[in-house]
Amino acid sequence: PNIALLPGDGIGPEVAVSAVAVLNAVADDLTFEEHPAGGAAIDLHGTALTDEALAAVKASDAVLLGALGGPKWDTNEPGAVRPEQGLFKLRAELGLYANLRPIRPLPALYDASPLKRELIEGVDMLIVRELTGGLYYGERGTKDGRAFDTMVYTVAEIERIARAGFNAAKSRVTSVDKANVLDTSRLWREVVTRIHADEFPNIELEHILVDAAAMKLIAAPRHFEVIVTENMFGDILSDEASMLTGSLGMLPTASLGGTGPSLFEPVHGSAPDITGKGIANPIGMILSGALLLRHGLGREAQAAAVESAVDKALEKGIRTGDLGGTATTAEVTEAVLKELT
Amino acid sequence: PNIALLPGDGIGPEVAVSAVAVLNAVADDLTFEEHPAGGAAIDLHGTALTDEALAAVKASDAVLLGALGGPKWDTNEPGAVRPEQGLFKLRAELGLYANLRPIRPLPALYDASPLKRELIEGVDMLIVRELTGGLYYGERGTKDGRAFDTMVYTVAEIERIARAGFNAAKSRVTSVDKANVLDTSRLWREVVTRIHADEFPNIELEHILVDAAAMKLIAAPRHFEVIVTENMFGDILSDEASMLTGSLGMLPTASLGGTGPSLFEPVHGSAPDITGKGIANPIGMILSGALLLRHGLGREAQAAAVESAVDKALEKGIRTGDLGGTATTAEVTEAVLKELT
Ligand SMILES: CC(C)[C@H](C(=O)O)[C@@H](O)C(=O)O
Ligand SMILES: CC(C)[C@H](C(=O)O)[C@@H](O)C(=O)O
Repeated sequence: PNIALLPGDGIGPEVAVSAVAVLNAVADDLTFEEHPAGGAAIDLHGTALTDEALAAVKASDAVLLGALGGPKWDTNEPGAVRPEQGLFKLRAELGLYANLRPIRPLPALYDASPLKRELIEGVDMLIVRELTGGLYYGERGTKDGRAFDTMVYTVAEIERIARAGFNAAKSRVTSVDKANVLDTSRLWREVVTRIHADEFPNIELEHILVDAAAMKLIAAPRHFEVIVTENMFGDILSDEASMLTGSLGMLPTASLGGTGPSLFEPVHGSAPDITGKGIANPIGMILSGALLLRHGLGREAQAAAVESAVDKALEKGIRTGDLGGTATTAEVTEAVLKELT
Repeated sequence: PNIALLPGDGIGPEVAVSAVAVLNAVADDLTFEEHPAGGAAIDLHGTALTDEALAAVKASDAVLLGALGGPKWDTNEPGAVRPEQGLFKLRAELGLYANLRPIRPLPALYDASPLKRELIEGVDMLIVRELTGGLYYGERGTKDGRAFDTMVYTVAEIERIARAGFNAAKSRVTSVDKANVLDTSRLWREVVTRIHADEFPNIELEHILVDAAAMKLIAAPRHFEVIVTENMFGDILSDEASMLTGSLGMLPTASLGGTGPSLFEPVHGSAPDITGKGIANPIGMILSGALLLRHGLGREAQAAAVESAVDKALEKGIRTGDLGGTATTAEVTEAVLKELT
């Protein structure tokens, strides 16, 4: 299989090296084709994702992305070229409407969580975020001192993400909306309720408001199994939930749903403050590689091997700075590779 | 002074009694005029706030609200009458564009927080939420299986809420937006930056993205002094931040900015599960009374007296069920009253 590798900006290239090493250690038939994306592509080509890179990505079997963006390309200009545009283009062009973010704090890292241990123990949730609709892709504009963005959803868009949520659940789905204010949320609730009744009657469904969800994620995180929600709410809640694990550096995410390749990336950003120091936590990126094996290539055994190697390496105590340790990116990568052999 | 009292639904009327008792104990010149609102008004008059009640509210010196809503009036019908409409009407008709939510966990209750004690100690932040713009008041609609809501902001709306934020700050304001996606956020960032440079150069200003803010509120809550943000982000983040204190039951909020009376209410909802049992925590409502004295009537000494009575009563150990105790609403109210005499 042919993996499109988009290391991107900041620590992206540093952690990409780790993931490639680990993937090559569990699978001997992967080829990686690298393309610039985000700020790196803006510097080279004036656009966050070239047509050539997009064509190569579309022809690949799966896409592995590092991180996009950084202060160099930060701008508040309305019409400016921004690194994130690469991401939006990938999501839209590949039709990646379902962003899966598993949140499972590792016992070895319970103490890194800002939450009390008794609240974190046993947390194992999946956030299913709609990724190609809502405020991200609706009409927007600024004119005469007035700006607007539009949150839009169609029945078909809600149906497919609802199915993604129910399919991922064993027993309970929590649908999050703001139905006491938004028309999109009232439609959301109606469609999710219907899909549930018609197609998934054996799964429990609950509806909760986004403000209440933001509270409950902290107050009772074990309550949640699968959360399904629209794009912007999902962006906020999944980052909030990430914090339960103590560090963003650990978390992978998968964006699925198109007919072509899926996209796998760590949750963390480009981390300009530590770029170039060789101390970034590579685990989020390595675990993104595991998700790529599982969801992108259908290789469950290889995925599980990577995940278990990460668990074991952490149990033995290795930690990068974000987790209070002093290990380098290379040392953590070595520690994971060692568990694989 | 004439206080418009809107007890509303669920536990609203129960905690309203407590607040009135405490207010009467510190001030002997208040009159309370009661009106139904929310579900109570829907049952009586078919509307969440009658014109008569609105007129009385407008003629008052300050408004004290309990809680609106409940399962009885929950509906997903597009055109239906909903209790929240009473709230939206009050906010819009009174021009209450600034919602102030102080988050200051009490030392006596540090252990009630889901967060580790060392993260909570010394937290003292104020969230300033824009309350009459954004997705709440923009155009919306549903047609042919497609729904939309519009997030709209004008320069003037951003200027006045930015000023409210800077005026409330001693040293730092954190402005929260999603400027990497939304045009409203890019305008927001531009205007806040200008107001800062022109009018508040001695206050430190930082911009952070809403997803990062959702993380940092948990990971490093002490970082924040004043947060200023748009309506929907403020709704989500302020409820998230509420959880730092361990219970919503403790928290008051003030909605200000109009030329007429301001509105004071507890953060908690109508709590249908404990309605009628006499066990609701009245402290959020009592402290809303303190905010009413301070911001509504300009009576700092009386406000401080109420707040200190609450602190003392809690230090002596009294707790309702939400805080792990067994005290009733009446017992907590008595305990606070005792500290006032
Ligand atoms: C970079 C940003 C535009 C992006 C988003 O909001 O979708 C990021 O926060 C994410 O969650 O992938
Ligand atoms: C009841 C609801 C519509 C309201 C809001 O979202 O503004 C509430 O959550 C609040 O924060 O006052």
